[in-house]
Amino acid sequence: MPICGWLLALSLAALTGNIVAANERTERNCSLTPPYIPSTAVNTTLRLQELREKMLPLNISAYIIPGTDAHLSEYIAPRDNRLAFMTGFTGSAGTAVVTQTKAAMWTDSRYWVQAERQMDCNWALEKDVSVASVVDWLLAEVPHGGQIGFDPFLFAIRKHTEYEVNLESSNRTLKSIPNNLVDEVWKDRPPIQPYTADADTQGWCVFPFSIGLFNMRGNDIPYNPFFYSYTLLTMDEIWLFLHTERVTDELKVYLNASCNGPLCVQLKSYDTILGELKKFVAKPGCKVWIGTEYTNYAVVEVITQEKLFTSSYSPVLLTKAVKDETEQRVLRDAHVRDAVAVVQLLMWLENAVPKGTETELTAAHYVDKCRSKQMDNSGPSFETISASGPNAALAHYSPTNETCRRLTVDEMYLVDSGGQYLDGTTDITRTVHWGIPTAMQKEAFTRVLMGNIEISRTIFPSDTRGINIEMLGRRALWEVGLNYGHGTGHGVGNYFGVHEWPVGFQSNNIPFRAGMFTSIEPGYYKEDDFGIRIEDVAVTVPAQTKYGNNYLTFDTVSLVPYDKKLIDTSLLSSEQLQWLNTYYETIRRVLGPELDKQGLREEKEWMLRNTEPFSRSDSGSTRLFSSSLTLITVAVALLQNTV
Amino acid sequence: MPICGWLLALSLAALTGNIVAANERTERNCSLTPPYIPSTAVNTTLRLQELREKMLPLNISAYIIPGTDAHLSEYIAPRDNRLAFMTGFTGSAGTAVVTQTKAAMWTDSRYWVQAERQMDCNWALEKDVSVASVVDWLLAEVPHGGQIGFDPFLFAIRKHTEYEVNLESSNRTLKSIPNNLVDEVWKDRPPIQPYTADADTQGWCVFPFSIGLFNMRGNDIPYNPFFYSYTLLTMDEIWLFLHTERVTDELKVYLNASCNGPLCVQLKSYDTILGELKKFVAKPGCKVWIGTEYTNYAVVEVITQEKLFTSSYSPVLLTKAVKDETEQRVLRDAHVRDAVAVVQLLMWLENAVPKGTETELTAAHYVDKCRSKQMDNSGPSFETISASGPNAALAHYSPTNETCRRLTVDEMYLVDSGGQYLDGTTDITRTVHWGIPTAMQKEAFTRVLMGNIEISRTIFPSDTRGINIEMLGRRALWEVGLNYGHGTGHGVGNYFGVHEWPVGFQSNNIPFRAGMFTSIEPGYYKEDDFGIRIEDVAVTVPAQTKYGNNYLTFDTVSLVPYDKKLIDTSLLSSEQLQWLNTYYETIRRVLGPELDKQGLREEKEWMLRNTEPFSRSDSGSTRLFSSSLTLITVAVALLQNTV
Repeated sequence: MPICGWLLALSLAALTGNIVAANERTERNCSLTPPYIPSTAVNTTLRLQELREKMLPLNISAYIIPGTDAHLSEYIAPRDNRLAFMTGFTGSAGTAVVTQTKAAMWTDSRYWVQAERQMDCNWALEKDVSVASVVDWLLAEVPHGGQIGFDPFLFAIRKHTEYEVNLESSNRTLKSIPNNLVDEVWKDRPPIQPYTADADTQGWCVFPFSIGLFNMRGNDIPYNPFFYSYTLLTMDEIWLFLHTERVTDELKVYLNASCNGPLCVQLKSYDTILGELKKFVAKPGCKVWIGTEYTNYAVVEVITQEKLFTSSYSPVLLTKAVKDETEQRVLRDAHVRDAVAVVQLLMWLENAVPKGTETELTAAHYVDKCRSKQMDNSGPSFETISASGPNAALAHYSPTNETCRRLTVDEMYLVDSGGQYLDGTTDITRTVHWGIPTAMQKEAFTRVLMGNIEISRTIFPSDTRGINIEMLGRRALWEVGLNYGHGTGHGVGNYFGVHEWPVGFQSNNIPFRAGMFTSIEPGYYKEDDFGIRIEDVAVTVPAQTKYGNNYLTFDTVSLVPYDKKLIDTSLLSSEQLQWLNTYYETIRRVLGPELDKQGLREEKEWMLRNTEPFSRSDSGSTRLFSSSLTLITVAVALLQNTV
Repeated sequence: MPICGWLLALSLAALTGNIVAANERTERNCSLTPPYIPSTAVNTTLRLQELREKMLPLNISAYIIPGTDAHLSEYIAPRDNRLAFMTGFTGSAGTAVVTQTKAAMWTDSRYWVQAERQMDCNWALEKDVSVASVVDWLLAEVPHGGQIGFDPFLFAIRKHTEYEVNLESSNRTLKSIPNNLVDEVWKDRPPIQPYTADADTQGWCVFPFSIGLFNMRGNDIPYNPFFYSYTLLTMDEIWLFLHTERVTDELKVYLNASCNGPLCVQLKSYDTILGELKKFVAKPGCKVWIGTEYTNYAVVEVITQEKLFTSSYSPVLLTKAVKDETEQRVLRDAHVRDAVAVVQLLMWLENAVPKGTETELTAAHYVDKCRSKQMDNSGPSFETISASGPNAALAHYSPTNETCRRLTVDEMYLVDSGGQYLDGTTDITRTVHWGIPTAMQKEAFTRVLMGNIEISRTIFPSDTRGINIEMLGRRALWEVGLNYGHGTGHGVGNYFGVHEWPVGFQSNNIPFRAGMFTSIEPGYYKEDDFGIRIEDVAVTVPAQTKYGNNYLTFDTVSLVPYDKKLIDTSLLSSEQLQWLNTYYETIRRVLGPELDKQGLREEKEWMLRNTEPFSRSDSGSTRLFSSSLTLITVAVALLQNTV
């Protein structure tokens, strides 16, 4: 599944392209009198009025509403979607600001059309999503000496610093308001789910280095097995802050919750975190270590400067990034079963599409169903991206009834999907063509594949940053003037988040060490035409080298063959061809027995057909052949002379 | 010429290795009673006492002495080497701090042995050169509430911020002391040179965008044609602060110094910069734009916060980074003549070394002499690195009488040198072997060459950062577990600095655009054994691609062949082999006529011999041959059947 950072031009043009039927009026038009408000928009007049009333006694000129939760989650529960409640806009990224007279919402190009469909004319849409742009707007609307209110639980510490830096010397100040004002006017706000089994924490913790996780899961957030919690880890104690009423007796036993001592987990109520932390910090000699990227500002507010020790990422995240042997083994296992589901989808589509009845939506449902039948599956790890033809050129496209295309043998098809299994999280993208691809499609696909292979097979010193090798994913495209506008990969959780930072190929990701799982997902997108992405999950493993030690390479754990119809082997180097054949041998060796075990004879045959070794049927061989012919001619001539 | 950032272990081990004869005692030993002070050390007792007396009335507990000048130059004039005067240590990088009772000097691993030889026991040697380490030392030595004095002219703004951040909440403060205290006790401080012709400024300037340089040169600094100056550029005026007594009437005419208007350069005395700037800043509505990396803190001290606009690099540096057509043409020309000098050196060594009389020093002198005979040469662009055998494994080794090795046919030899020409600056490294290289030497050399070629031939979008493609310089080495501990390249000036930042492959370098000149210089260093570096200067040029626009590649402007004895063509890809042969054709086409013009018949023949095209005489061909043999056998069998 790709990550943000799309080229604006690419996404915008595509989004305003041919998805919406030409004569269908679905976007608001606030310049008309009266304004045109589509039926998909939400009337926010009343709730805005109520929010503004709440702002008055607090003496704030503006109030910021981020689109995240207290744990800075990428996916959030409906009850945390205050941005959607206030604005009507349901996209996964955005920030709103409300003053007594104005209201504006910032989101990136992926969501501009959606925002114009979902917001009424109370809201201005702002398109530059940088903090600097929000602050520029604030400086124009907030008078000198004015205060800007925000909920400290919804600001990452780093984000808060960014606002502070941008507001410096402006004579406007941020005002922390721990009681969320949107919650106060949100009458139908969904309640906390009455009960969740298991749980894990998105942690912050106290120096020093002995870090433990609880290996628990919850279901407070869609697609991600998280639950709301904080952890305070000291040399002597472990405090776990959560909704204690949801903890079963069984879980208490597992957590050693009834004892006292350094390995006993003391359960505290989720809402007491700030008070307890304040008490802890008041003790002499203690110092608190927190990560500034994924800890909210409310926490840091109660820690005095001299007691604070920060790093970008909490040591919990850094420790979690390296999977131990058991985690690696079970994660690999999950990928084997996941491959069965994807093979089932691809095989089914191959037969069904030519009949003309299948759509992006039916395909998405099919793969979700296949996954659900696999052992220990607990649903998809994100909303399946099932995209045909021009829809695949869109960044985060997921089919809806409105946009859904019928699948045909004349168009390319991209499916990016993943599953949550009790033993691991998966994420894989395959792009296929059931008819005759154009030369350009074949070349682009092959070059995307070359990018995937070049990253996968490269050998690099341990502690190399992903950003320093990710150009290998682009180089074959660059050679012919092609490129893609998203990142090249992200860490993947072990029955956790499908985007598990800070592992990956982005500039703020940590250096690779052995045992990290990341997606590798170069792509190419031709506006209004087609989209290609080839995504596998791989684990960093030690590489044997002739002279050196402590080198790594990738071992691909996704196990689904690529569409051979789209591969032009003449473009591949012999090393790339060899990598591909070795990978296919691995698929046969590992996936074959699983298909046998599940009694999937037809799927096994499909897999074997699609993992036949490639031989170079290209101009290289032709050259060999013709030069051999010359030699034969010479040999014949010699023989004739001899005879 | 390589840039800093060497692996500590590599340099340290090598430096303490076999350069110094075993029984020669050259490093101080302060733990003996009395301490052992080598004759190479400077007695600093008296000057330290005088400095401490100057510190007393200023109420400072410590005084920081950086090893740079007011323009944050990499090379500095002897009169600016306050660090050397105070400590005795003459290395090119270091920082000293003096309190009333202690004195310490920080330098990196390249210079530890040298520091132990040059400093007396008044000084502690500190080895962690981070600002954090200096501050840790200061916190231990400076009492609560104490002040730390520094010369604001010798601190880059960014460096000053780093100290401030590290000292935050420590209850110690920095105190800016514009009169340098070392200068006050330095009785024999060399005077400013009485006269320099030409000049260019290391500029800072005022918003907005109209940026001009003066295309002037000076000789205030060794190897670099700079002179001391500041520029203030406004919408209406250009003020040039320099030592006006050195400006000739001719130069005044060139500068339009006698008129008033936006294109007239008004000459002001160098020492009036702060006063004039203060007056300028006091005007209403003005805002001053400065780069924080290469502007000293004294300048920013006189600008109030709200009038200041900063970026990492001054817009002058960013503009200068892209060379226009004329600059590109003359820079290429300089490289043609420079190649003549390097070819002369390599040809001479080939004959001279087997006779057994030449040394690293004679070779260095020879190439300097060859360059001096080339048109428009004005000396070397840095001290020639001429290093044989294990000496070449050292980072910034330049031969001295003490360390100099005799050149033999049994060892590899590395020569890294460059010239200043009126039309450009050059920098090139070649590594050669006059006897029989080992298999390992040949493999390492070939892989370094592969790195050089892979960067040179790669195609990438304009605005790609060097750091994102520099792994191509390492990849062939990584494959077999080898690597190097320095950067991969740096910008090169146009008769300016040989290290012209911010162009290059480091993480803080700016993205590449067409018209930037950079060195490309991967290497490999085997401790106590040999060193390899292959360095060329290349210019970024537009690349033609099949589908895209705005792509770049490199065009190599250095024109000297590599030692073919060290190249194992079987390791090269066909693309690499093709690049190499195309490069050699270019050398023949461009350098050939220059050698003819200079009447250098023997050199021309040497060049032609050393640029003969490579053909693949490797196992690839063998495979072709044997499979052809099989075909012949088949053909023969067929014929026999037919007959």
